[in-house]
Formats: sequence, structure tokens, C-alpha cells
Amino acid sequence: MTNVLVLNGPNLGRLGTREPDVYGSRTLADLADLLASDAPGHSVEVRQTEHEGELTGWLHEAIDTGSPVILNAGAWTHYSYAVRDAVAMTVAAGVPVIEVHISNPHAREEFRHTSVLSPVASGVIAGFGFDSYRLALSQLLR
Amino acid sequence: MTNVLVLNGPNLGRLGTREPDVYGSRTLADLADLLASDAPGHSVEVRQTEHEGELTGWLHEAIDTGSPVILNAGAWTHYSYAVRDAVAMTVAAGVPVIEVHISNPHAREEFRHTSVLSPVASGVIAGFGFDSYRLALSQLLR
Amino acid sequence: MTNVLVLNGPNLGRLGTREPDVYGSRTLADLADLLASDAPGHSVEVRQTEHEGELTGWLHEAIDTGSPVILNAGAWTHYSYAVRDAVAMTVAAGVPVIEVHISNPHAREEFRHTSVLSPVASGVIAGFGFDSYRLALSQLLR
Amino acid sequence: MTNVLVLNGPNLGRLGTREPDVYGSRTLADLADLLASDAPGHSVEVRQTEHEGELTGWLHEAIDTGSPVILNAGAWTHYSYAVRDAVAMTVAAGVPVIEVHISNPHAREEFRHTSVLSPVASGVIAGFGFDSYRLALSQLLR
Amino acid sequence: MTNVLVLNGPNLGRLGTREPDVYGSRTLADLADLLASDAPGHSVEVRQTEHEGELTGWLHEAIDTGSPVILNAGAWTHYSYAVRDAVAMTVAAGVPVIEVHISNPHAREEFRHTSVLSPVASGVIAGFGFDSYRLALSQLLR
Amino acid sequence: MTNVLVLNGPNLGRLGTREPDVYGSRTLADLADLLASDAPGHSVEVRQTEHEGELTGWLHEAIDTGSPVILNAGAWTHYSYAVRDAVAMTVAAGVPVIEVHISNPHAREEFRHTSVLSPVASGVIAGFGFDSYRLALSQLLR
Amino acid sequence: MTNVLVLNGPNLGRLGTREPDVYGSRTLADLADLLASDAPGHSVEVRQTEHEGELTGWLHEAIDTGSPVILNAGAWTHYSYAVRDAVAMTVAAGVPVIEVHISNPHAREEFRHTSVLSPVASGVIAGFGFDSYRLALSQLLR
Amino acid sequence: MTNVLVLNGPNLGRLGTREPDVYGSRTLADLADLLASDAPGHSVEVRQTEHEGELTGWLHEAIDTGSPVILNAGAWTHYSYAVRDAVAMTVAAGVPVIEVHISNPHAREEFRHTSVLSPVASGVIAGFGFDSYRLALSQLLR
Amino acid sequence: MTNVLVLNGPNLGRLGTREPDVYGSRTLADLADLLASDAPGHSVEVRQTEHEGELTGWLHEAIDTGSPVILNAGAWTHYSYAVRDAVAMTVAAGVPVIEVHISNPHAREEFRHTSVLSPVASGVIAGFGFDSYRLALSQLLR
Amino acid sequence: MTNVLVLNGPNLGRLGTREPDVYGSRTLADLADLLASDAPGHSVEVRQTEHEGELTGWLHEAIDTGSPVILNAGAWTHYSYAVRDAVAMTVAAGVPVIEVHISNPHAREEFRHTSVLSPVASGVIAGFGFDSYRLALSQLLR
Amino acid sequence: MTNVLVLNGPNLGRLGTREPDVYGSRTLADLADLLASDAPGHSVEVRQTEHEGELTGWLHEAIDTGSPVILNAGAWTHYSYAVRDAVAMTVAAGVPVIEVHISNPHAREEFRHTSVLSPVASGVIAGFGFDSYRLALSQLLR
Amino acid sequence: MTNVLVLNGPNLGRLGTREPDVYGSRTLADLADLLASDAPGHSVEVRQTEHEGELTGWLHEAIDTGSPVILNAGAWTHYSYAVRDAVAMTVAAGVPVIEVHISNPHAREEFRHTSVLSPVASGVIAGFGFDSYRLALSQLLR
Repeated sequence: MTNVLVLNGPNLGRLGTREPDVYGSRTLADLADLLASDAPGHSVEVRQTEHEGELTGWLHEAIDTGSPVILNAGAWTHYSYAVRDAVAMTVAAGVPVIEVHISNPHAREEFRHTSVLSPVASGVIAGFGFDSYRLALSQLLR
Repeated sequence: MTNVLVLNGPNLGRLGTREPDVYGSRTLADLADLLASDAPGHSVEVRQTEHEGELTGWLHEAIDTGSPVILNAGAWTHYSYAVRDAVAMTVAAGVPVIEVHISNPHAREEFRHTSVLSPVASGVIAGFGFDSYRLALSQLLR
Repeated sequence: MTNVLVLNGPNLGRLGTREPDVYGSRTLADLADLLASDAPGHSVEVRQTEHEGELTGWLHEAIDTGSPVILNAGAWTHYSYAVRDAVAMTVAAGVPVIEVHISNPHAREEFRHTSVLSPVASGVIAGFGFDSYRLALSQLLR
Repeated sequence: MTNVLVLNGPNLGRLGTREPDVYGSRTLADLADLLASDAPGHSVEVRQTEHEGELTGWLHEAIDTGSPVILNAGAWTHYSYAVRDAVAMTVAAGVPVIEVHISNPHAREEFRHTSVLSPVASGVIAGFGFDSYRLALSQLLR
Repeated sequence: MTNVLVLNGPNLGRLGTREPDVYGSRTLADLADLLASDAPGHSVEVRQTEHEGELTGWLHEAIDTGSPVILNAGAWTHYSYAVRDAVAMTVAAGVPVIEVHISNPHAREEFRHTSVLSPVASGVIAGFGFDSYRLALSQLLR
Repeated sequence: MTNVLVLNGPNLGRLGTREPDVYGSRTLADLADLLASDAPGHSVEVRQTEHEGELTGWLHEAIDTGSPVILNAGAWTHYSYAVRDAVAMTVAAGVPVIEVHISNPHAREEFRHTSVLSPVASGVIAGFGFDSYRLALSQLLR
Repeated sequence: MTNVLVLNGPNLGRLGTREPDVYGSRTLADLADLLASDAPGHSVEVRQTEHEGELTGWLHEAIDTGSPVILNAGAWTHYSYAVRDAVAMTVAAGVPVIEVHISNPHAREEFRHTSVLSPVASGVIAGFGFDSYRLALSQLLR
Repeated sequence: MTNVLVLNGPNLGRLGTREPDVYGSRTLADLADLLASDAPGHSVEVRQTEHEGELTGWLHEAIDTGSPVILNAGAWTHYSYAVRDAVAMTVAAGVPVIEVHISNPHAREEFRHTSVLSPVASGVIAGFGFDSYRLALSQLLR
Repeated sequence: MTNVLVLNGPNLGRLGTREPDVYGSRTLADLADLLASDAPGHSVEVRQTEHEGELTGWLHEAIDTGSPVILNAGAWTHYSYAVRDAVAMTVAAGVPVIEVHISNPHAREEFRHTSVLSPVASGVIAGFGFDSYRLALSQLLR
Repeated sequence: MTNVLVLNGPNLGRLGTREPDVYGSRTLADLADLLASDAPGHSVEVRQTEHEGELTGWLHEAIDTGSPVILNAGAWTHYSYAVRDAVAMTVAAGVPVIEVHISNPHAREEFRHTSVLSPVASGVIAGFGFDSYRLALSQLLR
Repeated sequence: MTNVLVLNGPNLGRLGTREPDVYGSRTLADLADLLASDAPGHSVEVRQTEHEGELTGWLHEAIDTGSPVILNAGAWTHYSYAVRDAVAMTVAAGVPVIEVHISNPHAREEFRHTSVLSPVASGVIAGFGFDSYRLALSQLLR
Repeated sequence: MTNVLVLNGPNLGRLGTREPDVYGSRTLADLADLLASDAPGHSVEVRQTEHEGELTGWLHEAIDTGSPVILNAGAWTHYSYAVRDAVAMTVAAGVPVIEVHISNPHAREEFRHTSVLSPVASGVIAGFGFDSYRLALSQLLR
């Protein structure tokens, strides 16, 4: 049995209300249910934070517990080298971190085309709505 | 009666002591008094935070309560896409967010010439000292 | 009693007919009425020109008469260093020049994100329609 | 029953011999077997070409037959606007095209950080070896 | 007797475990011991935080108490203009802030070559392992 | 019967004397004759100005009269956003504006490779000498 | 009697089905008919290829036969220096090559604003739909 | 006897009042006197304009009369390709045009470091106050 | 006895006719004779293609047969990452690939100053006409 | 009586033989004669060096002796910050340094358009052949 | 006993006279005394040169004698790849080279923000006046 | 009998000791022996200098004696426009200068990818160790 951490960054707690035409109308709670039913016999913990420091702390926790991570860092994807360093440490410690995005960042504003996390993440999945998380989960459990 | 949120970002709690020749010698408390007297019959709440996550949370609150926002994001203006996303969500929800600056960022260092918030804010007012806030307030109440 | 010059650059004489969804349907004459009623006891002169040289001449006049200026330089905002030099001279002479924009240039095409005037203007107000002018006027008269 | 096209670009026919530490030692034939066993009851066709024109032709075929596409365009990813146009046409016709990469391009040379395809692809999956294809397949069949 | 604040940014609490070939195997506790023995008769307080807002708060505290600062801002060095503003305020208040780095940022990834703090710091010391802190301390106590 | 405006920018009145190896030895008067004979039954008015403001005024006139425009803006092509705005207004009003060039700007100095007008013009014809105008005319009359 | 080659690059064989709102609903066969009827007594050969090498070969053929060329290189316009070299050779051999575009590339995505062919082409016509070809033909036959 | 044209661009009519610490307190009339006394037996005509089109017209006049030119184009130096084209025509016609500046543009703001005129001017003299004109005059009369 | 492959890219089949002042008047057949007489007892195969895919295929063949390669990729030198990947694979397999150019690309247009092949080629020889090939051959046979 | 130093940088000792169509056929000895006859009663010392360190030494000497300097730094103009620092020191010490160029650098290769010396020189004169030196001399003696 | 080389680049021999407000009024001789008294029992040799080649020679000497180096390369810091190569060779040979600066280059002109030496130096200390050298010395002797 | 000059720039005198895995273990003396035995009946002079001015002097000597040059300018390759000017003068005088590099600069650090010499050199040979010199020699003697 694996414990998977599904970590979400700023503004993602608003899912379901924020620009539903871009992000769909489902919430993080819906996501938790969906992932739980995808992974019977495993634990999938969905968390969200507005605080960069809380996210880096969770990544440190992942190192200590060895829990693989699915990470949607939201806007931090584009500038937070603090999160990048934490991701790099996690991957270097042998704990996979898969970067996911609900929409395809490359099809949106220019600033979303740069990810400071991708160079150190284990892999990237983008553009499939909540299924981006599900694909990442199936990969982690494979 | 409208409840206006006047949200201030990092280091702005030091107003009155920080480089008085640039920012004047008045404090946020002075600002609160000033805005209160400008808007009899309305509520004007002046807040300040050093935490990016607290600011995005206040913007979420503004969406929920429908309170218009005057935002001086301080240095986050220049790099926080997390705040930008929150501002975009707020404006998209029909709640105005006016970006204000005490001094004129374009007359200062190069990095202050770029605002990642301006493209999504309702409007921008800069360079009038505390009067930048007052102008924004008068606009919101108009 | 103050005499305020409200100077407008190229194509702005077409206001009311030009892309009304962006600029609204009111004309410069409407603007003049609006500002006049905002400033009883003062003189507010609204002018418009297609000629860069006429605009720099008006700024020289402002220096000589000490009339504060509200300036919407239109497309010149983005490339006319001649206007910039005239603005700088005016402000250096103690006569305020407030840069205004009807729409928010940062929310439009890339080339509109650069203002060669902002670094020398007294302040900037953008994105409030005709109210951008009104806010500037209230500030000048304060 | 769906017919999925798995299209591979230049040099990918050398998989299994080319830099095995980066790409692993399995061949495209192995990939075909793997995907076939992943999708019983469906047809999965794995093709490879050194000719840009052959690839754009296959994408045109996908439009005509409505077959969803998994695309690893190899080095063309970084400069072929011809392939981009063909991908855009395919997606615009309602036929999904998922961009996949065996390794994580962002962890390699600078020129691999730019994909001219991502802005028009349905989604992107990178960094999981052959599993990148498998994740894409499971998504197409979902 | 001087009270010196030694402030550390994100991920630095992991020192001793994070990439020991780059950062050595000693922890922040070791650093505290080392600096304490270097400065008999003085107080040296070593702190670490994952929260940008906590760091700017500590810098405000330094202004109020007049405690000189040794600052290793970690990844914030490269993008946090909020920290930069706080550093600038501190130095402007006559309280020195020395920027230190354990390794030499210029010998590492490209993004580490830019420090947004250096233009406002009192000085910079980089590349000497924990001795970077010790050199800074000796300078502050001189 | 259509009235076509053929508008020429700065220095183009010197045609026939200016660098004849680049522009040929014929004058604007020759051009007027040529176009007149190409369009029997129509009116073709050839104008030239050294004043940006006069050109934007003519474009406003084109809007009011509905006259299609052939525009060789000369050097303004490369920097005049005032002219661009006027062209955009004209085209948005349903009046076509075809951008023409006598020589091929892309085969000349670097700064001539950028046209700020092309993104808003109805179409572009370049490199055919006076025939660039004639092709534009035949297209307008088609 | 002249033999004119009308050469089309990648994806242009899909004309009539591809994004009809941008390119119209007519096909290359329609184009061939149109041009044939425009040029009685001449031969107009419309060709299309997905293969860069086939296009450069056709340009070599044009040199050998002296046939003038109308070239719509599609996406290759933006990156194929091989096609550019072939165009340059053709024009240097005294055989004209007119670059045409159906839509106005400058009004579309950023990458379409650069043409590597324009600096060596005889002339450029863009933005008139199929009439871009017709104007080029009339010029070649003049 | 030579007739020398001394042409001045925007804002230069304000010399003597504009930022005297940068430009000195003398006026264009003073300059005219100075140059007249430097060139007994010659005619030296000092002109100034706020209108780009007037300046290009004067340069055309210089071609027609063969009068050598001393040109201080002010802010147009940095962006007016229309003036550049006129200068190039003048020099190509065998009439020298010397570019002068009162102050040293390279010691001022960034945008003043680029002159679009220098590549086509006969020569450049900058940084000597009114003596920049005098040196140019002595060279023209040599 | 060694079998050397001399691979030539697009437009190089026109050697002897194409811009003889740049490339000389000799053909690829002349080159084949020249190299044959330089390398008695060896096989030297001179090939040329307009198809990128044919060139990458030949490089794959070189890996399989262990034949050293002399490569003049023509215009692909400047943008074909597909060819680059094939070159890298070849060199990584222990088969040398020497990049040659007839003329000196650095003395020509800007876009020819960048070679995407040089970073992975075994060596580079440029600027000696057909002797560039002969030097490469003598080095391969040394 | 003034002692003027005329300092010349690398390759300028070849004047008279080097590209006479660009630099003329006169030598530095001719220049020395010319300047001597221009300045009766003064000493004009013409020196040339291939060594950057010798040039900075001469500038130090100028500070110590108070001798004004005419400087043609040749290619160092474009990259030697060591010379720039020496020039800045000289000018700051109240000793004028006039930068001269024989030809107009802005009309030549791109890299000659940037002078690292101009921002700190007293003034700049370029494009008049040996007369550039003579104008500088007359200015120094004025 | 260690022999430390303190190597100084161009213009640094002028210390004490050059811009005393930036660099202080003490000379290199003062520096030598200061460092000598800091390191009793060791030899500290302070040298200065205007010649890049002399500096690279001294670094070669350091390799041969194993003497650690304190290097203030002055303006060469910003462009001399020759010095960089010599520094890299020295450090690679196990001999430390500490880059020092008297003032903080990041607080000065733009061009001083880039050091071509920092990527290969053992460490960097900047901004403490002569104490920058002393800190480096104490580090080398530690 | 030809006299060939083999000129080497900074740090190349350390060959044989400097990073032997990159440059091999042979010295310039070994190179001299190798080239001498390659060119019986000719004179081959191998020189090395740390002084830019000595190298430009040698190139002037080559012009005067007509001796062809093989040039490895080391790090100056990347920034010395003084050497570039000297190379250009030499080649313009009909004396060939072949630029050589021991290793392949394009496979090393970014700054080594730019050569300021290549645009004016007769040809370039890079990446073959000492054989780069031998190939250049055989070409000069051909």
C-alpha cells in the first residue's frame, strides 16, 4: 500500500468556481473521491495551500516518508525557485514528483509557457483536466 | 453601504518609517483614518500582510462577499503570478480590483517597470502618495 | 481659479465613433462638459491634435502659463520621445502632467505595454474610461 | 473499437540502439507489442518516418478517418511549423493529438525546452519512457 | 555585546541531508554552534523559515532592534523582490545585511546567476561553505 | 464609380530624384497618370505628405467618405503607431487599406523588416515598383 | 506563351476543408481553374507537396525551364532556409519568384510574422485570399 | 560664400530655459549670433521646428539648394526613420549633413544611446555644448 | 580500405551552376573525381539529397556500416535538429562525422552564423572551397 | 602653452597602408605634422600602441600632468572596460578626453555601433577623417 | 608559512587618488601593510598590472609555486576570457583563487553586474572596501 | 620555400599541463616538431604570447613579409576586436589567416560559441587536436 500526496498550489482551492470553462466545475473534493476510487487499497491525500512555505514543507515531508507526489503548483510553476529546489531535493532522494496541469499551459498566456519546475520533475502531464491527476496516479502505482 | 477592502502587500506595514522622502511619513493607520473620513456611510477595511497566501485568501474572500478591492501588492506586483491569478479570478467574478502605487514605479528601478498584475486589474493608479488610494476609493464609490 | 489643459493625441478626435466597445460612445465634447461640471470655478480646456509638434507646443505653453496638464497622448505614448522630452520639461518646471488612458494599455497589444512617457510623468491613471480624466482632474484640483 | 495512430518522427526508428541509457533498450516493435496488450479489442498502429511530409500526410489521414493520435515528433518538435499546422488542423477537426516524449525534454539541452507543437496539442506527457505512450493510450481510450 | 541575526530561507533547514556533496553534511545546528564559538561575548541567533513573510518580518525586527543580519535567502535570492525591499529598508536604516551563499551561485545553474538582493545588500560573500557565514560574522563584529 | 485614395508618406514626394536605382525615375505625377489610365470611370487621387497628422486626417476622411485606400507610409511604416491606429480604425469601419511598397523592404536594412501597419492592414503588396500600386488598385476595383 | 508554376507547401492540399473561416472553402483545384481562366493562352501549373525536397526540386526545374514561379510555401515560410536558398538561386538566375499568402500572416500568431523567404523573393503579396495568386499571376504576365 | 542650414528639432526652441544645468542658459538666438560671428562672409541660417514634416522639408530644400546642413534632431534622433531617410537622401545627393548634440547622449538615458541618424550622417559631433555646432560649422567651411 | 560517405544537403546538387562566384564552377561529379584521386585504395561515395529524411537515413547507414562521414548539410546546418540528432547518434556510436562548408558561413548572412550541428560534430572545416572536403578526407584517412 | 596627448589604439600604426579607401593614405606621422601646424605655440604629442596597458598608463600620465587627451582607441572602443575606467578617471580628474574616429563607426559593422567609452568621454567626434582629430584639437585649445 | 599572491588589474594602481568616495583614500601600499600585519608568519605579495598578459603570467606562476591567489581583476572582470581561462587553470590545479571587489559591482553600472570570472573562481567577496581583501586572506589562511 | 607563422594566444603556452583530458599532453614544442616534419623544405615558426598587442604586431609582420598564418587566438577568439581588425587587415593584404582550434568550441561553454574572428578569417578548422594545425598547414602549402 502506497501513500500518495496530491499537492496543489495557490488558487486551486477555488476549483469548481474559478473560470469553469477553463477548469471545469468539479472541486478538489471531487478530485479526492475520483482518485480514491482509482486506487483501492492505497491512500491518496489531496492537499491545497496558498502558502509557498507550506508546500515546500510538504515536499520535505514526502522525503521523510517516501510518499510519491503529484504536484500542481499553480502559478508558482512559473517563478518559484523555492518550490523547484524542494522538488529537486525530493526527486534526488528517490521520491518521484510528477508535475501536472489541468489545462495546457502552452495554449494559454505567454508567462505560462515557462515552467521552472519541469527541468527537475520526474515527468510532466498537462491538458487532460482532472485526468491529468489520474494518469499521474496510475503511473505512480504502476 | 459598501465594504471596501484595502489590501497591502509586503513591507507596507513599515510605512511612515521606510524611506519617508519616497513614501511620506504617514502610516497605514493614518491611511485608514483618511479613507474612513472620505467615505462616510461606508466601511473601509485596511489590511496588510507579509504572506502571499494571506493576500490570495483575502481576494478569495472578496469574491465571496462581493467587496471591491484596492490593492497595493508592493513588491509582489513585479513577480507574483499567484496574486495575479487571484486578481484575475476576482475581476472575472465581477468584483473590481484597482491596483494602486504610492510612488510612480516607472520612475524608479527597472524591475518596477513590469507589473504582472496590470494586465488583469480593473485599473491602475500610481504616483500620488496616499492620494492614489483616495482616488481609487472615490472611483469605487462612484 | 486654475486653468487645466486636457491634451489629447492622434485619433482621439474620433472618440464616440471609434471602436465604441473599447472606448465608449461619448465624444471629446462630452468629456469637456463632464470635466467642466466637475470643476466649477475653474477653467478646463480640452484640446486634440493629430500633430506631434502641436502637442509639444501646448506643453511649452503650459510651462509658460503654469497650467497643469492631463495628457492622453494616444499612440505617441509608445514611441514619441519628443513628447517625452516636452513632458519632462514641463514637470521639471513645476507644472504637473498626469498621463491618462481610457482603456488599460497593459490589457491590450504588446506594443501598448511600453509607455515612454510614464518615467517622467507626475502620475498615471488608466483603465477607467472617461473617469480616468476625472480622477486626474480631482487630483490636480486637490 | 478505436484505431489509434502512434506516430514517431526522425531517428526514433533507432530506439533500442540509440543512447540506451537515455531511451532504454526496447524498440518500436516492443512498443507496438506493449500498446497492443494494453488495448485489447482496439487497433494500435505504430509508425515511424524520417520524412516530415510523410508525418503531415498521416495526420491528414487521421482527420479523414477520425483516428486519435499519439505523437512523438522527435526533433521536429522544436522547429517544424509544418507539423504544427497539421496538428492544429487535426485537433480543430475534433481528433485528439497527444504529444509524448520518452525522456523529459526540459531536463536536456536548451533547444529541447521549446516545443512548437505544445500550444496546439490536446495534451502533453513526458518523461516516463515508453509509459508516456501507455498513459496517452489509456487516456485516449478512457 | 551585539546580537546578530543569521536568517536562512527555504529548504535550508534540510542542510546536512540535501545534496551533501554540494552543501556538506553539517546542519544549521552545527552552524549555530560554530558561529557561537566564533563570537564569544555576543549573541548569534540562527533562524530558518519556509515562509517569505516570516523572513521579511525578521528583517523588520532587525530594523527595530538594530541587530545586524547575515542572510542566506536560498532560492528567494533569485526572484523575491519582497525580500529585496525588506533588505533595502534594513540597510537604509543603518543596519547592515550581508548576503551569503554556501556554494558559489555563479558556478551553478543559470537562474542562480541573478541575485535580486545583491544591488541593495551591504555586501556579498559566496562559495566558502559554512565559512561564508563566519566571514560575514567577523566583518559584522569588526 | 469609386474614389480611391492613394496616400504617400514622408520623402515620397522626391520620387524620381531620390536614389533612382532603388525607386526608379518616375514621379508621383507619373504614378497618378498611370493609375488614372488603369481605372477609367473611377477617380484615383494621389496625395503625399510629410506630416503624420495629415496622413491620419486623410484616413479619417476615408472613413467618412468610404473611399478605399492604397497606402505607402514610407518610413512611418516602421514606427508610427499613430498611423497604425488610424489604419485599424479605417479597416474596422469596413474601408479597405492596402499597404504597398515600391521596393522589397525585407531585402533592405534591418529596421525596414518590421512593419507596424501590416498586422492591421487589409493586405500587403511589396517589391514591384509602381506596379505595387497598380496591383492594389486592380484588387480594390475587382 | 508562358508556363507559370504555382507551387504550394505543406498542408495546403487540405484547402477547402482546413479552417474554412480563415482560408475559405475553395480547393486548389478551384484555384487552378481560376488561374487558367485568368490567363488564356498561357499554361498555369498548380502543384502542392508535403516534402520540402520536392519543392526545392521544383524550383531547380524552374531555373532550368525559365518558368516564373508563384510560391505559397505555407509553414516553411517561417523556417526553411533550404527553400530560401532555392528561391535565391532561382531569382539570381533571372527567374522571378513571387511569395504569396492567402491570409495576412502579420495578423496571426507571432511566429508567422517572420518570413525567411521575403528577403530573397522578387516581391510579396499577402492577405487577399485566392486573389493573392491572381494578382501575382497578372504581374508575371504583364 | 556658403549658405549653411542649422536645423533643430523638437523642444530645442526652449533652450535657455530648459534644464539649464544640462543645456546651458543660452538661446537659439545666441547660437545664431555666435555662428554668424564665426563665419564672416557666409550665411548661417538657424531654424527650429516642432514638426517632423517641416524638418524633412528643409532637408529636401538643402538638396535643391546644395546648402550644407548642421542637424540637431533632438528626440527624433532616436526614432524618426522619416528624418533618417531625408538625411540619407541629402548625403547621397552630395550635400553634407553633420549630426550634432549639445550634451553627450551616451552619458544620459538608455534610449538616447541609439541614433537612427548616425549610420547615414556625414559625421557626428557630441558633448561640447554650443561648441558642437561651431566645430561642425568650421568643418563645413574648411 | 575505408569506405567514406560524403553527404551533401539541399541545393548542393546545383554546384557548378549556382552562384559560381561564391561556390566555384565545379560540380559534385568533379568533387567525386577529386576525392577519389586523393584516396587511392579507398572508396569515397559522394551523395546528395533534397530530403532531410534521406540524409538521416544515410547517417543511420553509416552507424550500421561504420563508414566515416564528411557532411555538408547545406541550409539544414542552421535549423535541422533532426539532422543534429542523427549526427549525435553517429558520433556517439564511434563513427566520426566532420562538418564541412565550401564557403565561410561566418562571412555571410547572419542566419548562417549558427550551426546546430557543430556542437555534436567531430570537427569543423570551413572556407576552403572543395579543399574543405579534401582536408576532411585526409584527416579521416590519417 | 598646452601639451596635448593624441593617443591611438591597436592597428592604427598601420594607417596609410590599411584599407586606404576607408582610412585614407596618410600616416600617423602625417597626422602629427598636420596637428603641429594647426597648433603653433603648443605641443601635440601623437602616440600609438598595440598594448591596452600602455594606453591606460598614458591616461594616468595625463591625469598627473594635466594634459588634455584626444583618444582614438580603435577596436578597444567596443569592449575595453579597462580603457573606459581610465578615461572616466581622467575626466573625473578634470582633464578632458575627446573620443575621435576617422570613419563613422555607425556606418560600418554592427559591433562598431557600441562604444563603451562614449558614456564617460567629454565628447565625441566621428566621421571626418584626420579632420576629426583637428576639430578635437581646436576645441581643446579654445 | 604560505606565500599569498594579491593580484590587481588595470587602474587599481591609482587607488587612493581615484574616486576616493567610491574606493577610499588608501593606496595599494597601505593594503600591503594591512595584509602583512593580518598575516604574521606568512608572506603576502601585492602586485598590480595594466597588462592582461602579465596577469595571466602571474596566475601561471601561482600554479607552478602553489601560491593561493586573491584577485581583483578590475575591469577585466567583465570581459577578459583570457583571465578567466587562467583562473580556471589555476583552480583546476588545486590552487585557490578568490575574486574580490572593493565596492559592490552590483550596485554600480549595468556592465559591472556580469563577471566572467565568478563561474570559475573559488569564491567571491565584494563590497567591504579593503576588508574584502582581508576577509579573503583570513579565509585562505584558515 | 614558404615561411609559415603559427601564432598562439593566451594560456596556450601551458599546453601539455593544462587540462590534459581536453587538450592532450603534448606541448607547443611537440607541435613545432610535428609541423616541421610535415613541411620539409619550408620554415614553420611556432610562437605564443600572453599579450594581445604582441599578437597584433605579429600579424602586421605577416603583412610585411607575406607569411601565411595559422592562428589559435585562444580566449581572444571570443572578444578581441583588436585581433579581428589585425586579421582582417592581413587577409585584405592577400595573406591568408586560418583560424584553428584544438578542441571543438561549439561543444564547450556558451561563450566559446561566438568567434569574432571567423567572419574575417580565410577559413576555420576546429576539433582535431594538434591535427587542426596540420590540416591548416597542408592547406597553406597546397
